[in-house]
Amino acid sequence: MTQQHFSINVRVYVEDTDYGGIVYHANYLKYMERARTDYLLNHGYSLRDCEDEGFLIVIAHADIQYCRPAKLNDDLIVTAHVSKMGNSSLVFDHEVLAKSDPDTVFAKGQLRLVCISKTTHRPTRIPSFLREKFMG
Amino acid sequence: MTQQHFSINVRVYVEDTDYGGIVYHANYLKYMERARTDYLLNHGYSLRDCEDEGFLIVIAHADIQYCRPAKLNDDLIVTAHVSKMGNSSLVFDHEVLAKSDPDTVFAKGQLRLVCISKTTHRPTRIPSFLREKFMG
Amino acid sequence: MTQQHFSINVRVYVEDTDYGGIVYHANYLKYMERARTDYLLNHGYSLRDCEDEGFLIVIAHADIQYCRPAKLNDDLIVTAHVSKMGNSSLVFDHEVLAKSDPDTVFAKGQLRLVCISKTTHRPTRIPSFLREKFMG
Amino acid sequence: MTQQHFSINVRVYVEDTDYGGIVYHANYLKYMERARTDYLLNHGYSLRDCEDEGFLIVIAHADIQYCRPAKLNDDLIVTAHVSKMGNSSLVFDHEVLAKSDPDTVFAKGQLRLVCISKTTHRPTRIPSFLREKFMG
Repeated sequence: MTQQHFSINVRVYVEDTDYGGIVYHANYLKYMERARTDYLLNHGYSLRDCEDEGFLIVIAHADIQYCRPAKLNDDLIVTAHVSKMGNSSLVFDHEVLAKSDPDTVFAKGQLRLVCISKTTHRPTRIPSFLREKFMG
Repeated sequence: MTQQHFSINVRVYVEDTDYGGIVYHANYLKYMERARTDYLLNHGYSLRDCEDEGFLIVIAHADIQYCRPAKLNDDLIVTAHVSKMGNSSLVFDHEVLAKSDPDTVFAKGQLRLVCISKTTHRPTRIPSFLREKFMG
Repeated sequence: MTQQHFSINVRVYVEDTDYGGIVYHANYLKYMERARTDYLLNHGYSLRDCEDEGFLIVIAHADIQYCRPAKLNDDLIVTAHVSKMGNSSLVFDHEVLAKSDPDTVFAKGQLRLVCISKTTHRPTRIPSFLREKFMG
Repeated sequence: MTQQHFSINVRVYVEDTDYGGIVYHANYLKYMERARTDYLLNHGYSLRDCEDEGFLIVIAHADIQYCRPAKLNDDLIVTAHVSKMGNSSLVFDHEVLAKSDPDTVFAKGQLRLVCISKTTHRPTRIPSFLREKFMG
């Protein structure tokens, strides 16, 4: 985390753990989506607004690297950062870190999202107001 | 399980467990809903059909008794049985049992569902064709 | 919510919703557990401490009343309050409310928990230090 | 799916969907793990056996390509196939397909798993009996 990126706090609850006593691997994707959602809301935008504007943001690709396991009641920081911006797609980079020590990385994720029309379900240009917010 | 009721098989996967090595308590509600869904499908009816017909079936009340914990890779039987039928509501009784020994009860649930209009969101009479299927 | 009870803030994310656009019914149990967990941590106690002390707190019974559906990105308040205290069991009352209007109740829950020995898995007396904290 | 690979059947339930009416993206990881678990069980081996033998299989990396969205009550096929085998790590390839038409691909996943010692948590050689089963 060389730069300051947007981040949220996440606490690990029982619901997040599995029989190994660690965060179930699929749940890191949930944490990352929470960070993306709050990033959007923080920029004055919600997924419900997107729907009202006639488009959806769907996930096209996810790449997750599991570095070390987070455990019950760990306090985490989850970052969200737009690293690439295309015409209809964008890439979010995420890191899941220990709140007590941001050098402790639990997971890293790279998610490619695509903006599609709500009616045709075909890729559509990311609205300019949103584009400006993402890159702002 | 004194009578023969509709039932499905469920295997406990890692996703279902928590740090205690047992099925996370909220997940029994998922198992019970799977049984209700398959019960409906088995009667030739899906939740998507309900929507197309202009109504939704929502959950009004859930009562779950946790008897003993199910564990990773346990093979379970989940029963579904309509025990009460009102004008706009109905009650489903469920049991989660060990497949290898149906006398081993993991959980029991009683769920009250209400049929509501998709447009007004107010309770509406359960369609007669569905009523017949439930009570058949 | 006639009195001041312990509460946490919860935001509804995509992970929490279902095809109806509302919070999936089982997820209210997750929200309630988050509140109980934070209640414990707020009293200086964690579930991991319990394990270290040789006992587990398991859920014996859950009763949930669904009042109205919460939706994507709703900001919720989830309360936790110990309403009964026995020798080895206790009852938590929970409410899930709209943060913007605490008179808007989404769900109410009553959860009975039992303190069991980690070795014998039999009910055991709730440790006095914990008892005092719960009732404090 | 040019070859015959191990596969399981998965039905999409309400628990799996999100407000978009489609399978929530993180849940494909659950489907893939169910296929891996059944693959192991089919080879006479469970995750609990692994623990008893003193090692754990943890996920190091996940790569998921989302091709098209699966919907409520869709019947899916989820394949599991070991595509690489190292000393302490192995790679599973997965596909999530429509049961009614295996040319309809919903998602593809590549998961790298590492075998670690239960005590030291360091990578350890995959036991030979398991290695033979995986490559059999």
